[in-house]
Amino acid sequence: MADVVQLLSQALGDVVSVDARQLDAARYDKSGHAAPAAPLAVVTARSIDDVQATMRIATETGTAVVTRGAGTGLAGGAIAGAGEIVLSTLGMDRLLEVSVDDELAVVQPGIINAELNRQLEPHGLWFAPDPASRAISTVGGNIATNAGGLLCAKYGVTREAVLGLKVVLADGRLIELGHRTVKGVTGLDFTALMIGSEGTLGVIVEATVKVRRLVAGVVPTISATFATVDDAARASAVITASGLHPSIMELIGDSAMAAICAHLGIEHPGGSQLIIQTDGPGAEIEAETIAAIIASLGGAVELSIDAEDAARLFSIRRSAHAAISTLGTVLIEDVCVPRSALPAMFAAIHEIEQKYSITIPVVAHAADGNLHPNFVFQGDEVPQQIWSAADEMFLAALRLGGTLTGEHGIGILKKRWLRDELGDDQFDLQQKVKAVFDPLGILNPGKVF
Amino acid sequence: MADVVQLLSQALGDVVSVDARQLDAARYDKSGHAAPAAPLAVVTARSIDDVQATMRIATETGTAVVTRGAGTGLAGGAIAGAGEIVLSTLGMDRLLEVSVDDELAVVQPGIINAELNRQLEPHGLWFAPDPASRAISTVGGNIATNAGGLLCAKYGVTREAVLGLKVVLADGRLIELGHRTVKGVTGLDFTALMIGSEGTLGVIVEATVKVRRLVAGVVPTISATFATVDDAARASAVITASGLHPSIMELIGDSAMAAICAHLGIEHPGGSQLIIQTDGPGAEIEAETIAAIIASLGGAVELSIDAEDAARLFSIRRSAHAAISTLGTVLIEDVCVPRSALPAMFAAIHEIEQKYSITIPVVAHAADGNLHPNFVFQGDEVPQQIWSAADEMFLAALRLGGTLTGEHGIGILKKRWLRDELGDDQFDLQQKVKAVFDPLGILNPGKVF
Repeated sequence: MADVVQLLSQALGDVVSVDARQLDAARYDKSGHAAPAAPLAVVTARSIDDVQATMRIATETGTAVVTRGAGTGLAGGAIAGAGEIVLSTLGMDRLLEVSVDDELAVVQPGIINAELNRQLEPHGLWFAPDPASRAISTVGGNIATNAGGLLCAKYGVTREAVLGLKVVLADGRLIELGHRTVKGVTGLDFTALMIGSEGTLGVIVEATVKVRRLVAGVVPTISATFATVDDAARASAVITASGLHPSIMELIGDSAMAAICAHLGIEHPGGSQLIIQTDGPGAEIEAETIAAIIASLGGAVELSIDAEDAARLFSIRRSAHAAISTLGTVLIEDVCVPRSALPAMFAAIHEIEQKYSITIPVVAHAADGNLHPNFVFQGDEVPQQIWSAADEMFLAALRLGGTLTGEHGIGILKKRWLRDELGDDQFDLQQKVKAVFDPLGILNPGKVF
Repeated sequence: MADVVQLLSQALGDVVSVDARQLDAARYDKSGHAAPAAPLAVVTARSIDDVQATMRIATETGTAVVTRGAGTGLAGGAIAGAGEIVLSTLGMDRLLEVSVDDELAVVQPGIINAELNRQLEPHGLWFAPDPASRAISTVGGNIATNAGGLLCAKYGVTREAVLGLKVVLADGRLIELGHRTVKGVTGLDFTALMIGSEGTLGVIVEATVKVRRLVAGVVPTISATFATVDDAARASAVITASGLHPSIMELIGDSAMAAICAHLGIEHPGGSQLIIQTDGPGAEIEAETIAAIIASLGGAVELSIDAEDAARLFSIRRSAHAAISTLGTVLIEDVCVPRSALPAMFAAIHEIEQKYSITIPVVAHAADGNLHPNFVFQGDEVPQQIWSAADEMFLAALRLGGTLTGEHGIGILKKRWLRDELGDDQFDLQQKVKAVFDPLGILNPGKVF
């Protein structure tokens, strides 16, 4: 093992670190879970060449590699343990090109999502994928997990925003996938295959992404309070069924709202919240229609076009994960159901809460049918009772036509259910495709599969 | 070989045809090219069971299978030859489910694109992918080729409209890919891998597709005549660069326009045409801005909100392929370039026309940067001179950051260039992934790879 570190240091110099604190930090992500022991070394690549050199050494020595951006994942997908090389892309953080005319940008993987948007803004452009972590997560990580966020129903997930990728293979070869064009069907869609593959197929070292023109006009924000989370869920399903397309529709359940208010030191208005935004040429009319629907369903509604109001409301939403994490270790679920099934999914969660005598704080990207129920427990190990409750929740989502993970990925936290959703035949095919890209099994082993 | 037909007939009865006319028809698609000899049999499947039974027999006997919808492909991807079974999905043509609330539909693969839209309309919904062949092509075929069309820049290609698929594998097993939800990241994205795979990975037997609410309001249509095709291309690039998003922007070059007018028996107004449509809440303002841009660039512009005017203009566009096919056998190119490179691509085509003393009629989905230059020749064999000219065109597209095929697929017509665009390493990986799904090499052999 010392040989591997020596080989890396010889090839790469001082971007190879064995600093104990850096090694320890790589054991964690934002899931609250950690690898039992520290990895071998952290390579902070400066260039594609560095990544290729690292992968060549990994292949020669049969050493596992965990590619890592900012480490903000919520499924344990980028945590690194004993005997593993951490390949950090954080040093490759430049915006390489902006084409206003072609509405695209070329980026290195380590650029922070919000920083990319800051650099795009003077060009009148923005990058649509906006995970709640956008202030701290990298675009490379967003791509590796096919990150969602708040705006997906209207503006799509990360897969819809990526045109092409440069990828370093397990043995260090560089391949270029996709294109710079709106359309392109040359061969199998390896770009899409790579998006959401969580570091198991290759190392993403450059991305050509679609960017959009900044949306002009006022952006009305609607906040609504409902007595129960079921009422809030029903209202969101009715809004979708009415053919309205808010840019954002977030739901915060009552116990989640209580945790957030306690964390931020503000007063809890009571009940569950919907926070909704509309944009584009029809924004004001859409907002008024949504407000009327909410009022007719018994919600207490406020409509504002003030940007500060909106910022305050969304900072409440974006602090949900931090707030709930103060309560203990969190197993954050990420189920996604057809939007009409949101009320039924909340009812199922309510039953699980009663059956197990636990409280499950929930925040949801309601416009997408994507729920984050949070199982909170004390200590490092997930108690059996929590696994059982989470099991039931996953099965409820599947019964409703839903999926295990809308946007966080499988990592280590959702592995136990992967085969249940894919079925044995597809699971086996996925493992074989993984083996085509990674015959030695050195790319993020133990994750996903 | 007679054994295979016997096995199929025993298992499937009279859906197995060896009628000479039916066998002969399967040698062709709409590319103008044909397999040298007729296939063994045509199985017109009525159900997933029929498809599974066919594939089991194919695997047992090592017989090649060509899956075929309406046979409207333009790259020879579904033409079938000696010793091959044709598996037709045309008998599986039902709309199985519509969910207005979840904005999705479940369809069998053989439903015609336009027929799906006819059945969706009473629900206030539509299916966005609209290849120029939509009146005659199947949704299954649209998915197998990741079909584009006229509306892609604003409404996406087929990949963006498919949530999940049921696929029969080479050995007859059935797998379910994807989900019914807006988001979903469980495992590798095999749904996207299947879309555009041209029958080489499995047989698509059911699809869950995204549908959209019908867009309300007037739909202005702009037609513009330019003295030269370069002027028209420049205008389209300026419209895109101005941040406008017409739903449709089609370009018809002068020689293509002449062929269409002759075919339809109408007068050619002279020069090249842009046909543009805008829709949605800002449609009229956008249309007026576009008209002003065109006028400032020297185009003769007409703006109409009359639906009949629009229908007439688009019927001209949609008859382009039929019109050009009357001139001879057509090798239809399908290059796609970044939209800012449209004028440069037209200039490159003009040079190739002069160098080879040929006329290359061009129609283009200008909003996507997707060009269809048509090489016309006499006889069945593509002359070497035409291959050389097409070679140069493809290399010009690549130089401009473009791609070999925007929407038609590789089939047999673009095979010679596939490795050039993918590179050797990606080409080899794609073949290995193909082998994971099709270890015996019986799925559409000789196509794509």
